[in-house]
Amino acid sequence: MTAPLPAALESRYRSGDLRALARAVTLAEAGLPAARPLLRAARERAGRAVVLGVTGSPGSGKSTLTDALIAALRARGERVAVLAVDPSSPYSGGAILGDRIRMLRHHADSGVFVRSLASRGALGGLSSRTMGVLALLEGAGFDWVILETVGVGQSEVDVAAACDHTLLVVTPAGGDGVQAFKAGIMEIADVIAVNKADLPGADRTVRELLAAQGLGHHDEHTWFAPVRKTVASQGEGVEAMIEAVLGHRAWLGEEGLLRRREARAEYEVRSLVQERLFQRARAVRPDLYAQVARGELDADHAADELLRSAL
Amino acid sequence: MTAPLPAALESRYRSGDLRALARAVTLAEAGLPAARPLLRAARERAGRAVVLGVTGSPGSGKSTLTDALIAALRARGERVAVLAVDPSSPYSGGAILGDRIRMLRHHADSGVFVRSLASRGALGGLSSRTMGVLALLEGAGFDWVILETVGVGQSEVDVAAACDHTLLVVTPAGGDGVQAFKAGIMEIADVIAVNKADLPGADRTVRELLAAQGLGHHDEHTWFAPVRKTVASQGEGVEAMIEAVLGHRAWLGEEGLLRRREARAEYEVRSLVQERLFQRARAVRPDLYAQVARGELDADHAADELLRSAL
Repeated sequence: MTAPLPAALESRYRSGDLRALARAVTLAEAGLPAARPLLRAARERAGRAVVLGVTGSPGSGKSTLTDALIAALRARGERVAVLAVDPSSPYSGGAILGDRIRMLRHHADSGVFVRSLASRGALGGLSSRTMGVLALLEGAGFDWVILETVGVGQSEVDVAAACDHTLLVVTPAGGDGVQAFKAGIMEIADVIAVNKADLPGADRTVRELLAAQGLGHHDEHTWFAPVRKTVASQGEGVEAMIEAVLGHRAWLGEEGLLRRREARAEYEVRSLVQERLFQRARAVRPDLYAQVARGELDADHAADELLRSAL
Repeated sequence: MTAPLPAALESRYRSGDLRALARAVTLAEAGLPAARPLLRAARERAGRAVVLGVTGSPGSGKSTLTDALIAALRARGERVAVLAVDPSSPYSGGAILGDRIRMLRHHADSGVFVRSLASRGALGGLSSRTMGVLALLEGAGFDWVILETVGVGQSEVDVAAACDHTLLVVTPAGGDGVQAFKAGIMEIADVIAVNKADLPGADRTVRELLAAQGLGHHDEHTWFAPVRKTVASQGEGVEAMIEAVLGHRAWLGEEGLLRRREARAEYEVRSLVQERLFQRARAVRPDLYAQVARGELDADHAADELLRSAL
C-alpha cells in the first residue's frame, strides 16, 4: 500500500475518513509542509464543534473524567475526539501506552478518535503543532473535541487560550480549591468539577470554590463558573457537567465564541513565531546574546537581527 | 535648569553621578531612544556587581529582608542599588509609596540607590525596559544590585533569568517549602531563606527543603541551595545569607558568571522581541488572527506577517 497523494488525502479528510484524519494528524505533529493544505481545510470547516479543555493537577482524575465524558457524550449520539497532551514531558512512552488502552476500549466505535501528544512547546506551553492537531480534529466533523492536559505551571492558562471552554478538575483533598484560587487558576475555569466527590470534604470544597469566586473582581458581565461534584470512576455527575459546559456555550453566544476562536488563532500564531524565533534563530546567530552581554550590540539591534533571522 | 544634553548625561552617568543615573533610569523606563547610548555604556561597564534576585510569595518578608541586606552590605562598605518590581500590578501607587519610605531612610547615603517599577511586561514577565533599568544600575558602579520582585505565577523564573543569583524567601507557615517544591520554584533558587524563623516550624521547614533538594535530579555538578534561617525584622541571619550568595558566586566561577550574563542578555532581547511582536504588530494588522480563525490565512503565513510588521 502506498501513501495517498496529498490531494487525495485532503478530499478523504474532508469526507470525514478517520484513517485520513490519523494520517493528517501525523503530518501536522511532525510539522511537515504536506499538512498545510489540510490545516487550511480544517479551519474552513471549524467552528461547529464544542472544543473543551480539561485540566487539573496530577491525580485529580482528569483522564477518568474525560473517559466518562466520552461515554456520556456517545450515549447522546455525539461524536467525540480527544487530544491528550502532557506539555511537561519530553517523553512519549506513557502517552502511547495511554492511547492504546483508550483505543482498545473504543476501537470498534467510529464516533470516537483519541490521540496523545507528549511533545512540549518551545517555551513550555502548547506547541503550534499541538494547536494544528487540535484544528484538524475540530475540522473533521466531531461534535465535541476535548483537549486534556495535566496542569503544571502555566499550562492551565495555555489550555484556556486553546479552547472554547475550560473545565478545571480539583479534588476535595489537600485544599486543591484554595490552592487553585491562590495560584490564579480559577480565573480561567469556565466550569469546575470537584472530582472524587465521595471523599470527605467535597461539600466544603464546593463551598470554598463558590466563596472564592465571589471574592474576585466581578460585575454583571462576569461568568461564575458552575461547581459540580463528580465521581468520574462511577460516571456520577457527568451529565450535569456536560450541561454546565453547554450552559457556558449558550452564555458566550455567537459573538463570544467568535472572540474565543480569534484568541485561539492568536495563540497558535504566537506559538509558531516563538518557536521560529527561539529555535531557528539560535542556529543562524549563536553569538547574538554573548555580543549583547559584552556591550558590543544593543538589545534593540539584536531584536532586529532575531526577527530577520526567523523570517 | 534645563535638561542635560544626552552626551553630557552619558559622561555624568559614566562618572557615577546618582542624579544622572536617576535620569537615565527614567529615560529607560519610558523606552525613549535617548536611553540607548546610556544602555550601551552600562553594558560595557557591567559584570562587576553581584546581581541578586530576591523573590518569594506575598507576606514572606522579601522587602524587609532586602532592607536588612542593604544595612548589612552598607556596614561592609558595599554600595547597593535596589530595583523593586511588581510584575503582577499595572498600578504604580504602592511602588511609589514604598520608594519614598525607603529613600527617606537612605536619602543621605550616596551608597544606596532605590527604585520601584510597577509596570508589567507584555506577557506577564519582566519587561525589556525593566531589564534595561537593571543594566543601568549594574553599570553605575554599585557592588550589589538587588532585584526584588513578588513571586506570583511564573515570575520567579523570570527573576532567575534576569540575575546572577536567586534568593528564594519562604516562611515556616503554610507549608511554603513544600508548595515551592511542588510548583517547581525550588529549581531556580540558588539560596533559600526561611524567613520569620522565630515562628514555630522553622526547623521542620529547613529539613523539608533540604530533603526536597535531595529528591530532585542531581549529579556532581549540582548546586544544592543553602537553606538559612533569617528573622529579617531583627537583622538575624542576614550575614550568613550574604555569605551563602558569595559562596554561590565562587562556585559559578568566571565561566559560570559569563553564561549567566549571556542568559540575561537573551532574556532581555526576547522580552523586547515579544513586546514588539505583540504590541506594535497588533496596531499594524488588527485583523490577522480573525483571518486565521476564518481559514482565510494559514498560521505560517500569519507568522511571517507578524515578524515583518515587528521589524
